[in-house]
This record gives sequence, structure tokens and C-alpha cells, in this order.
Amino acid sequence: MLDTLEELRAIEEIKRLKARYCRFVDLNHRDLLRDLFTDDIAYEFQGWKKGQGADSFAGSAKDFADRLSFHRVSMPDIEVLSETRARGIWAMVDIIEYPTSPEKTGFRGYGYYHEEYRKVDGSWKISSLLLIRHRIEDLGVPDNRR
Amino acid sequence: MLDTLEELRAIEEIKRLKARYCRFVDLNHRDLLRDLFTDDIAYEFQGWKKGQGADSFAGSAKDFADRLSFHRVSMPDIEVLSETRARGIWAMVDIIEYPTSPEKTGFRGYGYYHEEYRKVDGSWKISSLLLIRHRIEDLGVPDNRR
Amino acid sequence: MLDTLEELRAIEEIKRLKARYCRFVDLNHRDLLRDLFTDDIAYEFQGWKKGQGADSFAGSAKDFADRLSFHRVSMPDIEVLSETRARGIWAMVDIIEYPTSPEKTGFRGYGYYHEEYRKVDGSWKISSLLLIRHRIEDLGVPDNRR
Repeated sequence: MLDTLEELRAIEEIKRLKARYCRFVDLNHRDLLRDLFTDDIAYEFQGWKKGQGADSFAGSAKDFADRLSFHRVSMPDIEVLSETRARGIWAMVDIIEYPTSPEKTGFRGYGYYHEEYRKVDGSWKISSLLLIRHRIEDLGVPDNRR
Repeated sequence: MLDTLEELRAIEEIKRLKARYCRFVDLNHRDLLRDLFTDDIAYEFQGWKKGQGADSFAGSAKDFADRLSFHRVSMPDIEVLSETRARGIWAMVDIIEYPTSPEKTGFRGYGYYHEEYRKVDGSWKISSLLLIRHRIEDLGVPDNRR
Repeated sequence: MLDTLEELRAIEEIKRLKARYCRFVDLNHRDLLRDLFTDDIAYEFQGWKKGQGADSFAGSAKDFADRLSFHRVSMPDIEVLSETRARGIWAMVDIIEYPTSPEKTGFRGYGYYHEEYRKVDGSWKISSLLLIRHRIEDLGVPDNRR
């Protein structure tokens, strides 16, 4: 089992990993995104889509070309299980917006990520991601289309 | 006084404690909530209610059966005072919603938690909680009642 | 180079520094704010204003006397570069409101702080601050002026 110092370091590295996940998605750094996942990542955005594999995830990100997203995660509850395995829960607020769509505007969501992490070649990566949204607020008509 | 490693571990454990407090409240894990408090916890939600005791707090949580809440805390500023005492300030945004009420909808609040913590039998617990809200936004009529 | 323990301590101290920056701005603790900056801090709020020097920053804060602000930062991605230098990126949501203005209400912004830090006389301080907002929501007419 890890000693306290190694455990605290793992937790900080996983927090940074998740911060980068959100930032790379929101700022469209799709090229950097794939490297945050294990090759065999299982992902599910509950009620919307699910899949497996880092290429699948990063590839599906192309679908997002016509949308904007703004993720804010907080309240990490991370448990290090071994030198190479951990799991965590993150509270989330996000905005998904479709600025060019004629029929849909977007929403603000509140939920939790339930995740697992593995350390691969010295770097922590997301190996499993489940997002459950508990509240959805319709964005209404955006300013620029009123 | 604690050495740096023990101090950092205490801070991480207190962050996790607060994350769980918010999550257990929001997801209605009332059974798990009580264990996060010292028996003699003093709590005050300024301008709304205050009381003392973990049973009192957990018991009053039953009043919340007809409401939904969504807490997001961030920006922890935690000071470890000794091996068994700490204090902290957390920024907060919350949504309190009354989905079945005919007359009130709910609000979004912005404020700060001012808290004290004690380590009891090896676990950090909240021993004092004061919430001060600095901004309240009326939620307006929720989508499902328009 | 720092060992792991010193690095983790630096990261925690910088997180606390940023938490205090936001809290001191929002709660108008202008006297405490200046001490969080290096004397030669370079700051830019993109598209709005920029300047140099802790006195300049703290002095310009007087302009804020007629506004309210509510900052929430999360997702710190902090890299310690040496014993006295670090850099970090923070996700931000803020509300800027002008409660007494007859013509402007305010906005909710989403963005990132890109910052540099220096350790001076044993304390980490912000030496460079760039805020880029990626989304602005008009607040609309506030409740108290409808």
C-alpha cells in the first residue's frame, strides 16, 4: 500500500488530470484530450451516449464541433486503492450550448462524475467515466438569437 | 505541532469531509450524514435557523424531504491548528428548490461556510458550521410548472 | 528541485492564496488584498484593463466601490517550477453587478485565470495575472430594480 506522501501525490495528480480533461474539452484541445484516457476507457454520459476506447471517445469529440461547453468540477472525493488504481467522485456544473443550431439552444446541468483511474507508464489516466446529471436548466433563447 | 505531511493529510481529509457533506445532503444520504458531525456540533444557517447536536442537525434534515438542493463548494482555505483541531472557510453556491410547493419555487445562493473541525477517533468531523449567504437569486417559475 | 513534500506544500499554499484573493475581492477586504501580490505584479483583465504593480492593482480596486462581485474558482492546474516560482491555470465563474447604476446591471462570466507565482520572504504571491473570459451572460434586470 502507498504511504501517505505517495497517496497525497496521487490525489493531486488526479485532480490535475480532471482539471485538464475539463479544460481541454472546453477549449477544444482535442489533440491533448486523448492522452488523458487509458486505451480501454469505458465512458457513459447517462441517458445520452456510452462507448469504449480512447479513440472512440476522442473521435466522438468531433461531434462537438458545433457546440460550446463550459465545465466546472469541484468537491473531489478521491480514494487511492493501490499504486496504480484509484477512484473518485466529482461534483459538476456544465453549460452545453449550440450557438449555430436553429432549433436548440442548450442547457445548464448539475451532476456527478463517477470515475476510475489507472496509472500507466507513470501517468494517471481516466479508465472509467460515468456522468449522471441530477438537474437540467434550459438555457432559453441565447442573447445573440433574440 | 503537526509536521508538513500530517498537515497536508489533515487538509485533504477535511476537503473530502466537506465534499461528502454536500453530496450526502444533495443525494439524500441522510443516514451517512450524521457521522460527519461531532456529537456537539453547533450549526447556523444565518437568517434561517440554528441549533446544536448531530442528532438535531440530522433530524432537521427530515424537513428537507420536500425540497431539492444542489451545493457546490470551492476555494477551501483550511488552517490546521493542532493534531485534532482545524478551521476553514469555503465558498459556496447552492440551489434550493421546492418542486411540489404551490407557492414557492426556490433560489440560488452565494455565500461562505465558516467551519471548525475536530478529529474524533481518527476521523475529522465538522464541529461548527456557519453559513452566510451574500447573494440570493430568485429561481423564478421552474420549467415544470410553467 | 523541490522534493515531493515541498512541492505539495507549495501547491496547497498557492491554492489558499487564490482562495483568499477571490474572497478578499468579493468581501471588500481591500487592505488584505495588496499583500497577496508581488510588488511588480503584471495584471490583465483581457478586453477591459491592464496594469503593473501591487499598489496600482490595489488602488484600482477603489473603482470597484460601486460594484459587487462573486468569484468562484476551481480546477487548479498548478506547476511548481522551482523553490520560488510556479504557474497555474484556474477555471473561473464570476458575477459582476452594479446595484446602484441606472443604466447597467451586470453579467455572469466564465473564463480562466493564467497566473504566475513567486515566493517572497516565505510567502507565495501572485506575480502575474491574466483573466480571459470565454462566455458572458447578461444578468438582465436585477430583482430590486424591476
